[in-house]
Amino acid sequence: MFTSDRDPLLLTPGPLTTTLRTKQAMLHDWGSWDHAFNEVTREICESLLDIAHATETHECIPLQGSGTFSVEAMLGSLTSSSHNILVPVNGAYGARIVKILNYLKRRHLVLEFAEHEPIDPLRVQDALIADPSITHVAMVHCETGTGIANPLESVAKVVHAQGRLLMIDAMSSFGAFDIDLRQLPIAALVAASGKCLEGVPGMGFVIAQHGVLVQATGNSHSLAMDLHDQWLYMQKTGQWRFTPPTHVVVALREAIRQFQEEGGQSARWLRYHHNGQTLLQGMRQLGLELFLDEAVQAPIIYTFKAPASPHYDFKKLYEGMRQRGFVIYPGKLTKIETFRVGCIGAINAFDIERLLHAFEDVWHDMGL
Amino acid sequence: MFTSDRDPLLLTPGPLTTTLRTKQAMLHDWGSWDHAFNEVTREICESLLDIAHATETHECIPLQGSGTFSVEAMLGSLTSSSHNILVPVNGAYGARIVKILNYLKRRHLVLEFAEHEPIDPLRVQDALIADPSITHVAMVHCETGTGIANPLESVAKVVHAQGRLLMIDAMSSFGAFDIDLRQLPIAALVAASGKCLEGVPGMGFVIAQHGVLVQATGNSHSLAMDLHDQWLYMQKTGQWRFTPPTHVVVALREAIRQFQEEGGQSARWLRYHHNGQTLLQGMRQLGLELFLDEAVQAPIIYTFKAPASPHYDFKKLYEGMRQRGFVIYPGKLTKIETFRVGCIGAINAFDIERLLHAFEDVWHDMGL
Repeated sequence: MFTSDRDPLLLTPGPLTTTLRTKQAMLHDWGSWDHAFNEVTREICESLLDIAHATETHECIPLQGSGTFSVEAMLGSLTSSSHNILVPVNGAYGARIVKILNYLKRRHLVLEFAEHEPIDPLRVQDALIADPSITHVAMVHCETGTGIANPLESVAKVVHAQGRLLMIDAMSSFGAFDIDLRQLPIAALVAASGKCLEGVPGMGFVIAQHGVLVQATGNSHSLAMDLHDQWLYMQKTGQWRFTPPTHVVVALREAIRQFQEEGGQSARWLRYHHNGQTLLQGMRQLGLELFLDEAVQAPIIYTFKAPASPHYDFKKLYEGMRQRGFVIYPGKLTKIETFRVGCIGAINAFDIERLLHAFEDVWHDMGL
Repeated sequence: MFTSDRDPLLLTPGPLTTTLRTKQAMLHDWGSWDHAFNEVTREICESLLDIAHATETHECIPLQGSGTFSVEAMLGSLTSSSHNILVPVNGAYGARIVKILNYLKRRHLVLEFAEHEPIDPLRVQDALIADPSITHVAMVHCETGTGIANPLESVAKVVHAQGRLLMIDAMSSFGAFDIDLRQLPIAALVAASGKCLEGVPGMGFVIAQHGVLVQATGNSHSLAMDLHDQWLYMQKTGQWRFTPPTHVVVALREAIRQFQEEGGQSARWLRYHHNGQTLLQGMRQLGLELFLDEAVQAPIIYTFKAPASPHYDFKKLYEGMRQRGFVIYPGKLTKIETFRVGCIGAINAFDIERLLHAFEDVWHDMGL
């Protein structure tokens, strides 16, 4: 039997399909003490601040590890035991923030929403008014658990009006959504190499207000994840404190260059939006229903309800798609059976069309 | 002027020069939920346990981030606030363990040695006898700050005889030194992808006694670095809890396969030893003096005393070597001026000979 040696396309929330150019950047070894590598780090940080329109106000601190390491570093470094953090939760990644705060023994308050509901700025406002001890709000922008986009702008305004600081997990939105820190009062946001910037996974970064960062001395529960220490050292030396994932770093630089060549955030948004619309239309023709209301769906990852049929089996669907060259993703909801399909990465609407053909095929094979 | 586009050789304690085959493994994208990737993780963990002869007794837990992340994860996950940890220190990485324990607020005791002295098992024994509250000893095997090899076997025996648990930072020794956990009573050791296994940097791993790991529930100060949680999840799903650095992971698998093809640990030791001997002999001919007594020098990284001449300037030496295709490393000693040259990575004695020619050349140019 003929087996293709091409990589399957990854229709997941990451790791994603990246361009060959991005991967080829990893065919070199770099000394982490060398000025040529310092220059790579500097270029990346400068570009990331530029994407967020934050060059004048914020600092960019890269960090080793997955995105969650950077989320934990942000929470641990920018808050202390004297703070109280409000966490609006409408999915798995909001719940993860709460889990981290429990590990860190940081005082916090959870504001729960149903998984299909975007976070309501008015309820956030009420909670802030009701409890003056709250100092920070920590929220996920796009919940990849479901694919929902939370209303960043209105939450940011409410939090600012109430005189509190906002920390955002922008893991799966940064680069694709317009996050303009000249307009949005955000104290810190976190994202990672392997999401909408289309690098490979292995590092994250925090973009934090200069003033907030300066005050972050001595907060961190961890040496490795001490953002303040990482920042100071980088300011002084241009280097990372501990061995950086050099190949991942140079791949991110190459990915960011392609991001800029493509036309930046607005071009990326359009491509993902087009991917998402193509996906949605095709899946609907197959009779599949979106879990979310389309109005709150981000063009990042889509959750579809599994069909009620006894013939349906996610493992069979996964394997059928896998054989045809596509990797999809399981659902992350506890109450109803779903599966997820991503539309980010170095893919376009033609790839989504091929995916839809494969879906139709597998659907048929499964007797659906 | 002609500028070579070849990568310089990295004569550092890491990141290292890796083979093209290792880097080429990164030319693919992998889904982190996919069974093919789970199989990569499984193969790596199995190989690492095999290298340590620990398949029957220990577990291998890979972790995202640099080696220091894994050191912190080991310390944070395997000890609790009711423990007391003795840390013999004879260099920068021993001092880093102390720094981490301070962050973690773990009770500890420092046993200081001069940087040119190997850790003395008798002094460790005395300290353990003198203070029965000590529960663990945490020690660096090879201090890359100087290049010294600490006497792992005799320290392990002393610690075991005194009924305490030993945790080893084997970052720069694992794969090159014979660490046989059937013979050596070691509760846990930690190393990383980008050292003597010659992978690329971006992940570490802890090899921990099954019984020690099982008791590690609820110790960790950090979600991202909770080894116990990472282990349980991996046992259950075959997957990493948070996005793994997929490209780094597949590169490590490829590097380990080459390690095995080369002849495993003993072959690697021989190659590094030969590299080191070639280096030492050549440098001595240039009139350079080793910082350490040769008897305690590990064939990993060599610290040389800077010449007393006013013509000497590390920056000039570095740049001269860099132009000739070699990246060397600054010293890490506070009291005397030194520089370091590594002999690990995908390099052999012919490369060291080329390095020596370049050294001679630069030496001459600097008027030394």
